[in-house]
Amino acid sequence: MHRRQTLATTIDTQLAFSRAEYEQRLASLRRVMEEKGADILIVDEKEHLVYLTGFGPSGTMYQACIVPIAADPIMVLRRLDGPSFLESTWLDGHVMYGDSENPVDVVAATLTEHGWANSRIGFELDSNYLSVQRYQALTAALPHATTIDFSNVLREQRLLKSPQEIEYLQQAANIADEAMRQAVAAVGEGVSERAAAITASRTFLELGGDSGHVGPIASGSRTDSLHGALRDHPLAKGEILHLELCPQVRGYSARLMRPTIVGEPPAEQAETARLLIEIQDKQLAAMRPGIAAHEVDRIARSGVLSAGLRESYDNSSGYTLGFYGSPYPPRTSDFTRIFVPTAEWILEPGMIFHMYVAAKGMAFSETVLVTDDGHKRLTGIERRLFTC
Amino acid sequence: MHRRQTLATTIDTQLAFSRAEYEQRLASLRRVMEEKGADILIVDEKEHLVYLTGFGPSGTMYQACIVPIAADPIMVLRRLDGPSFLESTWLDGHVMYGDSENPVDVVAATLTEHGWANSRIGFELDSNYLSVQRYQALTAALPHATTIDFSNVLREQRLLKSPQEIEYLQQAANIADEAMRQAVAAVGEGVSERAAAITASRTFLELGGDSGHVGPIASGSRTDSLHGALRDHPLAKGEILHLELCPQVRGYSARLMRPTIVGEPPAEQAETARLLIEIQDKQLAAMRPGIAAHEVDRIARSGVLSAGLRESYDNSSGYTLGFYGSPYPPRTSDFTRIFVPTAEWILEPGMIFHMYVAAKGMAFSETVLVTDDGHKRLTGIERRLFTC
Repeated sequence: MHRRQTLATTIDTQLAFSRAEYEQRLASLRRVMEEKGADILIVDEKEHLVYLTGFGPSGTMYQACIVPIAADPIMVLRRLDGPSFLESTWLDGHVMYGDSENPVDVVAATLTEHGWANSRIGFELDSNYLSVQRYQALTAALPHATTIDFSNVLREQRLLKSPQEIEYLQQAANIADEAMRQAVAAVGEGVSERAAAITASRTFLELGGDSGHVGPIASGSRTDSLHGALRDHPLAKGEILHLELCPQVRGYSARLMRPTIVGEPPAEQAETARLLIEIQDKQLAAMRPGIAAHEVDRIARSGVLSAGLRESYDNSSGYTLGFYGSPYPPRTSDFTRIFVPTAEWILEPGMIFHMYVAAKGMAFSETVLVTDDGHKRLTGIERRLFTC
Repeated sequence: MHRRQTLATTIDTQLAFSRAEYEQRLASLRRVMEEKGADILIVDEKEHLVYLTGFGPSGTMYQACIVPIAADPIMVLRRLDGPSFLESTWLDGHVMYGDSENPVDVVAATLTEHGWANSRIGFELDSNYLSVQRYQALTAALPHATTIDFSNVLREQRLLKSPQEIEYLQQAANIADEAMRQAVAAVGEGVSERAAAITASRTFLELGGDSGHVGPIASGSRTDSLHGALRDHPLAKGEILHLELCPQVRGYSARLMRPTIVGEPPAEQAETARLLIEIQDKQLAAMRPGIAAHEVDRIARSGVLSAGLRESYDNSSGYTLGFYGSPYPPRTSDFTRIFVPTAEWILEPGMIFHMYVAAKGMAFSETVLVTDDGHKRLTGIERRLFTC
């Protein structure tokens, strides 16, 4: 813990990562800046700001980090967020603005004051915070700058997780396991799916999760929708409760899905669950460094289709997991890498994915790390159809 | 409730608003399209999609509603979200894509198939979902289209709330009141601020809130930051616990802040709280249709500064409230209208704001509706410094 005296308040800095890890991230980014010939990079996607600076701005007004290739980064932020910035960042450089100011003007003015207005400036053209309007305003204010596309650069840099990142994801996965156990125990015939949400939410917070936001929970006809909204429908015999739990630790989210059936499962449902688990077990077993994603995907996809469990399979069978920020930024899931039939990308050690199979209102999923010689399941709860 | 048979599933449609209300929203939007000379509008900001269509897409892949001035709207969405779409929308027109497809291509192809590729097309250039990259791809695929800026149009249309919207916000405000009472009762000396989060979160869900995500809760030195992260610090005598509760009902969020002090408040703190409440009471009393926002703002700002409670006042004293979608989209607060010294805009009946004052680690706030002849506080809990 590092104590800093500023803003008329004493702030206890509690960094999520060591200074060395942040420095390494910045150094990696600067290597790409050099390759692409950028003197300056404007980072404004919230997930990337947290990754680089430690600070997760509220996103209500425009905030950005100016990263020069040869000088210290400067965070441009709302003055209201000053204390949050100081308690969470390893950076010193910052410019704060009041709510009456136009933050885009402040970014442009900061670049100009430092003599960077005419340089080669990288922008995250796929950022959810760099709206077209803001981009047009920035480039209009910097008419002699050359713009360079930095789409995807930080998303790809974030694919390989450090030991500390894996540790946060493991903590989140442990919370998901325990919350799943308690949520299943809390429901039964005549009880609303809301009871599962209440129990899971409390367990997230009790075990140190960032928030009580649980993820999609649905029952009855809506279990076919993996994104159903929480309702108050009381569970009836034979119905399936779909639970997806997404606890976060320091913003890192693990994910876990299990189906729960009210009463004894009919033979057909028990068989569907058995098949789904068997197919996904084979898929997970194939996950190792060097294998192409479409090969891993094919195991789940062709397995489910050839078993006649679904008529079509349009969704991916897995996607990237990692830092999401407080639940949830624009992208509720990170699709930087997805498992689909056209996916040529190769699995590497340190990548973490949410792998899921679903059919006939039932879904199973795990948080999975690619290791040096195979895979490790971070979520550890039994792989079976639960009953309540 | 309207039953629809599609996607091989039976979906119970549970619209958040009457069909007439959705039709009215679409008609208002088309009036602006006519004024601006747009044949087609692409809506992709999530809050606006929900407002127009009822459907809140997950945001992981690009989704957009194509709104023609003279034909039915067409929602372009992930096939995985099909069931969620059907259970929440009043629209019939839709195009679904699989996870292997490029959604931006699907939007461009849909426009082309309908003969709209060469028309005058409005884009939300301030949308958090229309990244620069997507905008460039769309306009490149539609080289003969004329683009029209629709920034702010839907944000401004959403400023005036309908009776049903006010009802959802009132329900959320009632949940905030009760959760505040229970959270304050759950803490005390030696208890962590996490206990307040757990209690508030449970109360949100028990009373029908959408999620157990509570809003910023902080204690100790971090109460000066209105955006502090949840920690496990046990409360000590004399410390202030800052609670901001943001429950949502059908995505509509009320907000409420109160400070709680551990033990008997020292005279200075009691006096600060008394002054803050008195100043904000005066500010709220001034809220009525026809008054300019800067006049309302001045009461809080000059009141706090002249009482010597703060050295500077850089943040706004209030901002717009309404639909946010599942917690939280890119903008954690809606700043379509803010109360600052430069705000010339005029208060109108049906506007709802989060009004807040803060100084010396204490903050008070309310959810406030502008009525036909004054204002109504939707949050109803006592306006005082709590103790625990």
